[in-house]
Amino acid sequence: MPHALPATHRQILYAARPEGTPTPDCFRLVTVPLQAPAEGEVLVRNELLSVDPYIRMRMEAKDSYAPVMAIGDVMVGRTVGQVVDSRADGLAAGDWVVGRLGWQDYSLAKPAELQKVDVARAPASAYLGALGSTGITAWVGLMHFGRPQPGETVLVSAASGAVGSVVGQLAKRQGCRAVGIAGGAAKCELVRQAYGFDDCVDYKRPDFAEALARALPSGADIYFDNVGGPILDAVLPLLNNFARVPLCGLVSQYNAAEPYGVRNLREIFNRRVTLRGFVLSDHKDLWPQAEAELLQAHAQGQLHYRETIAEGLENAPQAFIDMLAGRNVGKQLVRLRA
Amino acid sequence: MPHALPATHRQILYAARPEGTPTPDCFRLVTVPLQAPAEGEVLVRNELLSVDPYIRMRMEAKDSYAPVMAIGDVMVGRTVGQVVDSRADGLAAGDWVVGRLGWQDYSLAKPAELQKVDVARAPASAYLGALGSTGITAWVGLMHFGRPQPGETVLVSAASGAVGSVVGQLAKRQGCRAVGIAGGAAKCELVRQAYGFDDCVDYKRPDFAEALARALPSGADIYFDNVGGPILDAVLPLLNNFARVPLCGLVSQYNAAEPYGVRNLREIFNRRVTLRGFVLSDHKDLWPQAEAELLQAHAQGQLHYRETIAEGLENAPQAFIDMLAGRNVGKQLVRLRA
Repeated sequence: MPHALPATHRQILYAARPEGTPTPDCFRLVTVPLQAPAEGEVLVRNELLSVDPYIRMRMEAKDSYAPVMAIGDVMVGRTVGQVVDSRADGLAAGDWVVGRLGWQDYSLAKPAELQKVDVARAPASAYLGALGSTGITAWVGLMHFGRPQPGETVLVSAASGAVGSVVGQLAKRQGCRAVGIAGGAAKCELVRQAYGFDDCVDYKRPDFAEALARALPSGADIYFDNVGGPILDAVLPLLNNFARVPLCGLVSQYNAAEPYGVRNLREIFNRRVTLRGFVLSDHKDLWPQAEAELLQAHAQGQLHYRETIAEGLENAPQAFIDMLAGRNVGKQLVRLRA
Repeated sequence: MPHALPATHRQILYAARPEGTPTPDCFRLVTVPLQAPAEGEVLVRNELLSVDPYIRMRMEAKDSYAPVMAIGDVMVGRTVGQVVDSRADGLAAGDWVVGRLGWQDYSLAKPAELQKVDVARAPASAYLGALGSTGITAWVGLMHFGRPQPGETVLVSAASGAVGSVVGQLAKRQGCRAVGIAGGAAKCELVRQAYGFDDCVDYKRPDFAEALARALPSGADIYFDNVGGPILDAVLPLLNNFARVPLCGLVSQYNAAEPYGVRNLREIFNRRVTLRGFVLSDHKDLWPQAEAELLQAHAQGQLHYRETIAEGLENAPQAFIDMLAGRNVGKQLVRLRA
């Protein structure tokens, strides 16, 4: 045992459905007794929590691709942490694991719900980001649905974000031109300098559509879309024939009271575009290949990432709200132990 | 020679760009000298002309998937007709052929631009419709992009139209449930009775969305979309996970001054839908298989179609305008010889 276990621990519960942007009173911090693992379970002390856009969809009144949370549930989210007590085969105290363990200091889980990770190969936090579900999302969307060919142009929205930044770096490894879209000059600079995209366009520019067209002299063959909405509308006329649009999320729409109406769908017909929504959990068969290639890119120094880390479970709601507003740089994490 | 050739013949030219719905002054009827075929050409007397929604797109100011027409061009369109003079190998006077021969009484063409058809097997008009590019469009969209499985539900917009009616009949042959969307009770009755769809919903009903949901108790696995716009918006929430949406056209949008904004694209992500624009000319490799299966369905009495035939080339513009407004039943054709 690395340390004595406390009698209680903290959780953040889903307290109220948001109207538009979530507010702090959508969440409630509670202290509850710490349970010991039953036979076949382990107890994990969560080190870092990942707060991601999909969680906003789980706060809706209506099911999306995943069921919504009920009021009073522990907020959903992936964590990386260390096993502190094991009554299960295959996992021992001291092992580092990743899982959907929720917004809480400690979690009980079965080994099948956890993935063991090697913190000697990369920092624990990377297994929630570029080497974890974030990076695998980028890989599945780009490689499986985008099918990039050398010389093609790959356009990515939310390019400074955790998924988008990996998409661009994987595109470069495939011999593609990578162009990002991000909000503000500082994020665009990061996309070019830290992640090595060939270009990045600030969607807050008044002449965004013209600037985007200039950044795409040969059009776009793949548009990896994280945002939907008006940016998708601006991109559609710049797609090449037979372009592929993996649709990874619609972060611009999650907080919108009225969804934006996309006007340029005619281009999907004219240019024979394939628009494909995808969700990582449908593609578990691809995970081993994705993980192996991401670890290889990391080992070769070709996978850079940034993290914004909030300190303390009590600050997770604000970190989540800030992430939805785009105030984070790279992957938004929360360190749970104060 | 079946008859003496005249010295002149008639053409309809593209005279003016439409603003919204085309009007008669967008077209001009002219009489021009009839040319004899050069070496390697044949002269075709056009019997029937097909007027189709795609022609409206060729009248735009901006290229779509195909280049726009220039003012003064002969209007584009497919015809079926008879060779009346041949200076080319492989085709003789009396042969029936189909080609993109335009809105005119006679056309010069090379054999490579023509397809010989067998009027003993089916009426000449069918080779412009259910056994021609119309039927092949239905086949490619449904079979190649839709990939129907027995027991699935196939939803089709413009179901009483030339393409839509074939889609439903092919879906039934695949063991699917076929549900149509059409405008008005009479068209819906035709879709059910003449084409054998399991159900058809009138989009002009005030309770269209509710009626559509009732007609799709198990959702829709394929939505073959001919219309886009608000009907697409109504369908998106009724799609099943992993639904396929072959986008064959956006007839609701061709005459629209302002394109409709589609608000429910979030469902493409939630339900992992594939939306795919397609154009028949990209898929010539599939035509022989499609033609063979359509001829087989016809021979088995499983391919029914209707035609609306306008009389006289001079009435082609009005027939085209009426077709865009949905006033035709089945395939809209024009018989060129008065």
